[in-house]
Amino acid sequence: MVEAAMASGTASRRSIFELFPRRLPSGRRYGVVAGVGRAMQLLRDFRFGDEELAFLRDHQVVSPAVLDWLADYRFSGDIWGYPEGEIYFPGSPLMIVEGSFAEACILETAMLSVYNYDAAVASAASRMTLMAGDRPCIEMGARRANEEAAVAAARAAYIAGFVSTSNLEAGRRFGIPTAGTAAHSFTLLHDSEREAFEAQLTVQGKGTILLVDTYSIEEAVRTAVDLAGPELGAVRIDSGDLAITARDVRDQLDALGATRTRIIVTSDLDEWQIGALSAAPVDGYGVGTNLVIGSGHPTCGFVYKLVARAASSDPDAELVPVAKLSANKATVGGRKYAMRRYDNDGIAEAEVIGVGVQPQGDQNDRPLLHRLVAEGEIVWQDDLAAARERHRAGLAELPRAARKMSQGDPVIPTLYESDYA
Amino acid sequence: MVEAAMASGTASRRSIFELFPRRLPSGRRYGVVAGVGRAMQLLRDFRFGDEELAFLRDHQVVSPAVLDWLADYRFSGDIWGYPEGEIYFPGSPLMIVEGSFAEACILETAMLSVYNYDAAVASAASRMTLMAGDRPCIEMGARRANEEAAVAAARAAYIAGFVSTSNLEAGRRFGIPTAGTAAHSFTLLHDSEREAFEAQLTVQGKGTILLVDTYSIEEAVRTAVDLAGPELGAVRIDSGDLAITARDVRDQLDALGATRTRIIVTSDLDEWQIGALSAAPVDGYGVGTNLVIGSGHPTCGFVYKLVARAASSDPDAELVPVAKLSANKATVGGRKYAMRRYDNDGIAEAEVIGVGVQPQGDQNDRPLLHRLVAEGEIVWQDDLAAARERHRAGLAELPRAARKMSQGDPVIPTLYESDYA
Repeated sequence: MVEAAMASGTASRRSIFELFPRRLPSGRRYGVVAGVGRAMQLLRDFRFGDEELAFLRDHQVVSPAVLDWLADYRFSGDIWGYPEGEIYFPGSPLMIVEGSFAEACILETAMLSVYNYDAAVASAASRMTLMAGDRPCIEMGARRANEEAAVAAARAAYIAGFVSTSNLEAGRRFGIPTAGTAAHSFTLLHDSEREAFEAQLTVQGKGTILLVDTYSIEEAVRTAVDLAGPELGAVRIDSGDLAITARDVRDQLDALGATRTRIIVTSDLDEWQIGALSAAPVDGYGVGTNLVIGSGHPTCGFVYKLVARAASSDPDAELVPVAKLSANKATVGGRKYAMRRYDNDGIAEAEVIGVGVQPQGDQNDRPLLHRLVAEGEIVWQDDLAAARERHRAGLAELPRAARKMSQGDPVIPTLYESDYA
Repeated sequence: MVEAAMASGTASRRSIFELFPRRLPSGRRYGVVAGVGRAMQLLRDFRFGDEELAFLRDHQVVSPAVLDWLADYRFSGDIWGYPEGEIYFPGSPLMIVEGSFAEACILETAMLSVYNYDAAVASAASRMTLMAGDRPCIEMGARRANEEAAVAAARAAYIAGFVSTSNLEAGRRFGIPTAGTAAHSFTLLHDSEREAFEAQLTVQGKGTILLVDTYSIEEAVRTAVDLAGPELGAVRIDSGDLAITARDVRDQLDALGATRTRIIVTSDLDEWQIGALSAAPVDGYGVGTNLVIGSGHPTCGFVYKLVARAASSDPDAELVPVAKLSANKATVGGRKYAMRRYDNDGIAEAEVIGVGVQPQGDQNDRPLLHRLVAEGEIVWQDDLAAARERHRAGLAELPRAARKMSQGDPVIPTLYESDYA
């Protein structure tokens, strides 16, 4: 595309691309933005090195002129976007990229890959932490996702309220708190469960989490309290009917005097399972598979579309809104602006998108787009703590129907205001 | 776990871990192994560098003794496995890792991450290429998966019969043939569709694929043939009812004399859509989202379990089979061996797994486990061409019911033979 656009003299036309969801996954009431920080890191490192250029040259993918252009590639345009942790709805213009057609179009795959996966995990994680209430959720899904995706998933989950991850690389790379428990193999390695527990308690102290379902849960709990006393930190249950088992284990722990020993449950948990356990005596959830696969929706289906471009290569040429008409996939042309509209009680009531113009808001409207990149420089400063707080605050502003786990529509409508008419 | 096992003197016990699926995803008749080559690469690079060690030290994740052990870590054991492209069934022992407990247990996450995702994509891809028959499938899902997962997905799809990928990095890294088409943005960039097509034809030649559904498909096809003549390589349709539209476009192309111009379709294709298009005049499928998310099953749910370990730290100590009893998650202890059993017509009739002993096969049985690593050295030599052929041959040997897209059981049963009793 870059090569052909160079041939037709259109490659340098000033262009606006928009990254947005056409819709939410079926049944979801809202989505959660994640990946912004990773996308900015990727943009900073978006270079074509010797190996990449050699491949493109040797396989005649592009001409020498395009090779030269790629070798010098630095994004020099502007980007606005929803910040990380923000809530989004169908049509929310999550990222707006302005630059020459060539420099903006080649970012498509990198930006979509990051946003599509990270936001899918954050959106699922948000529903899980919502259902968990005050009980902590621990991310434990690394084994069930691609090895690099897993690190991104831990980060996205943390943004959406998870308290820690078992992924040490995510701890190292992003400063996310880490936590973990022993596997069944550790118990099986030893000649008896008692010896395994003794070894773990010796090294980790009495505050550790002992896994109690390798053989008989009742025996394991008795052994655990026998060895650690009432200071035992927690036990983990990873199988069976968790609600019933947690009740039995709680009763047993209490009878043994271990009234403060917590119960952590794991085993294919998702937001519905977590909700179903809300009345059970459970103190924390370890969530793996269903988190890293977005609880049934492992990609957000975000797209990256050209919505406006200059009428000519003249830097001052007027921007023309453009849109495809493809059946079922038509796009809304024109640069977008976005505000969240609130009622007088501070509850969100609409996602208002201005097409070609800033929406005429009232004083309660909150602008959603922030400048991320200015003339090629990344200007957005953010950290995971701010993103976590943004997610918490954004969720708190939504109507209570956002908490519904049943099938239904987005919790607020998306309204368009246009000056192109 | 390593630290506590060191404390109890069990870390050096010879151990056997097994990577296997408890079951196939609901409705699937078979699975396809992928990720072996990537896992071997990861194993070769499995080192703890200064940054990793500093993180573990600074956060007191492990003791100085374990840090020293990690700094010197090299896997020194043995690994056997199903080769890439092989078919698998519930319980198939896809990878068997033998080494000390410590050195084998810390590979769990890396091995599972690779196998769980790559095999999920290959298993979905196999159903798609099966439904596509002689028509080529092109991998186009990079934008809908994590940026690194996307490269792995292109590789897995290629193993399972896809002919090419739009992911240039997968082409560079793994030598997979690459292909691509223009996006709607390229058409929208130009002042008219005709100018966009002219630009693409100038650069790519008449053999290119023109995207014809940005505005009116009928007009676009007329323009395309007007510009390129009957030598036009292909048109791509990305929206609407693909079966009906392909029929209309075929009739129009034929009427215009472009009888050899191919029709490529894209737009949320999966194995059922591809099957439903088998009678439509379609010449190739571009598959994106549903491929990289495993067509509804983005992870295989493989687990990595300790199945046997030495009775003591003595290198010559007898191996003891071990198994957890956890409700619904019980494992089968003991070292596994695996054969595929055939009837007299050469059709597979069972997956035979020997527990603690090589199955007593007949002359038609085919052993499935190959030595991948010997005393820490990667000895398995394989390439993607061999993996593709293995997939093709493995599929050809299955009963015809393997082709069923309806819900159902694995196409052959898994049988266990045991000497532990």
